[in-house]
Amino acid sequence: MLTQMRPDETPILGANLIAPGRCEFRVWAPNVESVELHIVGAGSRESGVGGRRQSDVADLAISDRPISDARPPTPDSRVKLTKNARGYHEATIDAGAGTRYFFNVNGDDRPDPASRLQPEGVHGPSEVVSREFEWHDAGWKGVALEDYVVYELHVGTFTREGTFDAVIEHLDALKDLGITAVELLPIAQFPGTRNWGYDGVYIGAAQNSYGGPAGLKRLADACHARGLALLLDVVYNHLGPEGNYLGQYAPYFTDRYKTPWGLAINFDGPHSDDVRWFFIHNALQWIDEFHIDGLRVDAVHAIVDHTAEPFLQDLTSAVRQRAEALGRRVYTIAESNLNDPRVITPKDDFGLGFDSQWCDDFHHSLHTLLTAERDGYYADYGRTSDLARTLTGGYLYTGQHSPYFKRRYGAPPKTRDGKQFVVFAQNHDQVGNRMLGDRLSSLGSIAKLRLAAAAVVLSPFIPMLFMGEEYGETAPFQYFTSHGDEDLIEAVRKGRAEEFDDFEWEGEPPDPHDEETFQRSKLTRIELDDLRSLYRDLLRLRREIPALRSLDLDAVETRADDEQRTLLLQRGDTLLAFNFSDREQEIALSGSWTVVIDCGARLALDHISLQPEAFALLRR
Amino acid sequence: MLTQMRPDETPILGANLIAPGRCEFRVWAPNVESVELHIVGAGSRESGVGGRRQSDVADLAISDRPISDARPPTPDSRVKLTKNARGYHEATIDAGAGTRYFFNVNGDDRPDPASRLQPEGVHGPSEVVSREFEWHDAGWKGVALEDYVVYELHVGTFTREGTFDAVIEHLDALKDLGITAVELLPIAQFPGTRNWGYDGVYIGAAQNSYGGPAGLKRLADACHARGLALLLDVVYNHLGPEGNYLGQYAPYFTDRYKTPWGLAINFDGPHSDDVRWFFIHNALQWIDEFHIDGLRVDAVHAIVDHTAEPFLQDLTSAVRQRAEALGRRVYTIAESNLNDPRVITPKDDFGLGFDSQWCDDFHHSLHTLLTAERDGYYADYGRTSDLARTLTGGYLYTGQHSPYFKRRYGAPPKTRDGKQFVVFAQNHDQVGNRMLGDRLSSLGSIAKLRLAAAAVVLSPFIPMLFMGEEYGETAPFQYFTSHGDEDLIEAVRKGRAEEFDDFEWEGEPPDPHDEETFQRSKLTRIELDDLRSLYRDLLRLRREIPALRSLDLDAVETRADDEQRTLLLQRGDTLLAFNFSDREQEIALSGSWTVVIDCGARLALDHISLQPEAFALLRR
Repeated sequence: MLTQMRPDETPILGANLIAPGRCEFRVWAPNVESVELHIVGAGSRESGVGGRRQSDVADLAISDRPISDARPPTPDSRVKLTKNARGYHEATIDAGAGTRYFFNVNGDDRPDPASRLQPEGVHGPSEVVSREFEWHDAGWKGVALEDYVVYELHVGTFTREGTFDAVIEHLDALKDLGITAVELLPIAQFPGTRNWGYDGVYIGAAQNSYGGPAGLKRLADACHARGLALLLDVVYNHLGPEGNYLGQYAPYFTDRYKTPWGLAINFDGPHSDDVRWFFIHNALQWIDEFHIDGLRVDAVHAIVDHTAEPFLQDLTSAVRQRAEALGRRVYTIAESNLNDPRVITPKDDFGLGFDSQWCDDFHHSLHTLLTAERDGYYADYGRTSDLARTLTGGYLYTGQHSPYFKRRYGAPPKTRDGKQFVVFAQNHDQVGNRMLGDRLSSLGSIAKLRLAAAAVVLSPFIPMLFMGEEYGETAPFQYFTSHGDEDLIEAVRKGRAEEFDDFEWEGEPPDPHDEETFQRSKLTRIELDDLRSLYRDLLRLRREIPALRSLDLDAVETRADDEQRTLLLQRGDTLLAFNFSDREQEIALSGSWTVVIDCGARLALDHISLQPEAFALLRR
Repeated sequence: MLTQMRPDETPILGANLIAPGRCEFRVWAPNVESVELHIVGAGSRESGVGGRRQSDVADLAISDRPISDARPPTPDSRVKLTKNARGYHEATIDAGAGTRYFFNVNGDDRPDPASRLQPEGVHGPSEVVSREFEWHDAGWKGVALEDYVVYELHVGTFTREGTFDAVIEHLDALKDLGITAVELLPIAQFPGTRNWGYDGVYIGAAQNSYGGPAGLKRLADACHARGLALLLDVVYNHLGPEGNYLGQYAPYFTDRYKTPWGLAINFDGPHSDDVRWFFIHNALQWIDEFHIDGLRVDAVHAIVDHTAEPFLQDLTSAVRQRAEALGRRVYTIAESNLNDPRVITPKDDFGLGFDSQWCDDFHHSLHTLLTAERDGYYADYGRTSDLARTLTGGYLYTGQHSPYFKRRYGAPPKTRDGKQFVVFAQNHDQVGNRMLGDRLSSLGSIAKLRLAAAAVVLSPFIPMLFMGEEYGETAPFQYFTSHGDEDLIEAVRKGRAEEFDDFEWEGEPPDPHDEETFQRSKLTRIELDDLRSLYRDLLRLRREIPALRSLDLDAVETRADDEQRTLLLQRGDTLLAFNFSDREQEIALSGSWTVVIDCGARLALDHISLQPEAFALLRR
């Protein structure tokens, strides 16, 4: 529990400029007798690629005043760090921003696990980064969770340039659309320049090819200038395979458990307090130094942790405490496939304490109504009553047998607060994990896209759009990587191909390593019909109509007809009618209603007629 | 969740006589196309070794009426089972108690995973057992948990005979002592005849060499005749390595996680509902067929289960439901080294729902006061204030850093009910996991044994004694096995030796496979001084004095002096004073007190003087 930690249990990690030209280095290596700081170069400036402005950067300063514990660095100089009782090695020396360094561990030069910049990639030296930055967001408090409308984007494919700065140019359009929170796929330094981000290794180093830490700060500042929150997708369940030298420093990993993606993190074994601190330090650094407003924590179900106070509890507590101390709204949002109510339950009630979580049941229920797909996990869904159940409770599976998991799955959530669920018709995984990365836009009619828009935006949950969804982008979002190791390239290629062996799709998946796969995944920005204006209208109605603003699930009533494939969703004085079938349907209504917005509806005295794949929003 | 299971999700497993001479066989093997029942013999009687009486046993009946799904068995006959949609293979045929059978799985004759008797050991055939038994415990309701005084015994070494029936002869003495619940180390069929029980494989087959199922029923009946509850230690976290053919039937195991003792059980993967049912079926069978009053569930911390409704929740819910249906008091008690309050929290509050749990912190706090030992996990203990903290809250470690675990450990329990903690000065592990299996009796003075007695019996928790502790047994309880496989014998020998490499003890541990190791561990029943009468007196006082009967932890106050090594424990109008030091100590007292019982105390006006290693119980 963080509150029980003593100050010496929360040491600042990495390279920290404590004054211009004066830098403190600290690295955790409890089982390594001696760690050497190896200065390999004195960069004349911060070298984040793609930067437009330079932050206040000092050249490597070589002082002639005596320093007790270190000698001043010259390029290729070496400083032996002092090890403390907890296994942290540290030294304070004269060195400025731009200084490039390795830690030498048992004879090997390795990057800093808590590096803030990897100017030459995952194998190269780390670089000292100045905390100084000209912020314009004084007084920024964040956005209230209930007002979140999330936009998930991948920096590398969102723009032609593929940088943080290039994202900024699109913020006004997102704001105009009704977005309130921009969420970036993981931006921690990964191998090469093309990656979804889940192969990140240096969790505190904003990807050099995206523009590095300075670029990320500029993006956060620009978001805040427009009243937008900026969220990061952080990966704390594994680290990428390439450039991962952390095991040489300390017991970050364990072989007691497995993850689908690599070694499991040691969150419950000996020395796990310091492993936890490494990740919590990272979360707090994004919040403090980068003004990040929230963390989407990747695949919490892949974290195995047997302790009475799990890491994820520590993490959400630490973020909450820091947010309170800063007077800012900062949220933690879990990706979880467990349907486990503990994820979004407060710590005092034995929960993990996340503010919200992604809701796959909503996606799968909706996707299977929009398509005929029943492969894989879609086997467990497909009826309008499934979507109805999700809309009233958050989870569809609350203990029923799941054919996909081949066991009983889930438990009933205790919350009736819709903001604890983030829902979406598409996201990077649901699109990108398809063999061809094809979006809903290429799977069906525009009517389906409109249905999806209404279902997501007018749900009593937090809506999330995947970049381009708002205008019907048709470029795929395919799986791409740019590893440097030939064996790994081949293994990823093979793994990707095998993943689709069991499915009915024909052909081979695109080669992840081929740059064309990446290029193909960039947004074309070709807009489909008037979809954008529909999204904008729906988001405006969501803001303006009190019954739609309210996310109280007790105020939600549904009526589903699995034969007709129709669904009524009543929220206060509003009524949303969906027809997921490919023929016109009539739904009986009682009371007096007026149409607020519709795509293909005709209201009669005692019923509403809906065109194939049409919806209507009514109000008393 | 069991309540959500349909009737066809709770199939009766194994061989069940549905009428005399008519037997239903059922085994779960979802991935095996066809299972054959192989009748290998028609025992003329139930063959549990050591039985004194024979239950109502019918010879193998061969009927000539037509049976649709099976042919009547003759020795060495084979019957193809019918597989249902859930992967259960079943047939009902004419066969009586004593029939010996294998299931033939992919060409191999294997025992029934749900066998009720393995007359020839773990590799031999299973035997059909009659449920009929002449019970004398009509109206038995069990013992209330708050009245539990547990006596842990190992059937093989408790008596010369080493059988269930031989235990019966000692029940009167236990009753006279003040014991209310007898707890057996695991009795599920293990390899050979000498084993603590944690290598059990056939979890529903009472060990043949102990007297088999009939012997166990006689013991339960005899306990109930004396008002004693009978508890079983059940092992649901692993199965023993020898004779373990379960993996050939179904996905009982997983390699996603590890246990220290063998393959982890598949409690959260595909098909885990039926794996869970296998174990829950076992728990209910002990309760229903054997009238068992409670289950001590071994090492729950070794069960990894990522589901929203964990197996252990299902288990405790199922036992609770069954107990309510039967109108009996049946309890679940966890062995847990997690100090995780969820273990003893109700399911509705996201707990695992155990009624009580073993409390290692109490043991370690006490043991380190009685000895100078600081090896291994004892490093984290040793002050009277440690014991004091345990006495007031149940756990000592509630989030502090533990030098042994090398991380923060535990969380504060939410309960203030002392019956949720079982405490002991010794148990099979704490004695037997020492290199020489030496008891407290051989480690120190009799004064220490008296201190231990008072600390355990007068604690506000459920006391547990380890067989022989009540009279100062000096025979060791050593680690013994009798595997049949030479490689395994050598591996166990080697593993045992390596376990003590890091300790200061000299010499080699006794050879586990040597029969002498087992014989040496049998009780000598040589009584030390008047220890038994002290235990009897303390247990009587515990029953008779209301302040000692109450297990309300809010009524407990302590005052510890780590320098003096003294401890005051006030419970209502009683005051217990301990001197753990080897010199006389004075403890200041206010108010007027009288001595109820003491070993070496002198009460003065404003203080009490305690001899070295003495205690006194005072009352206002």
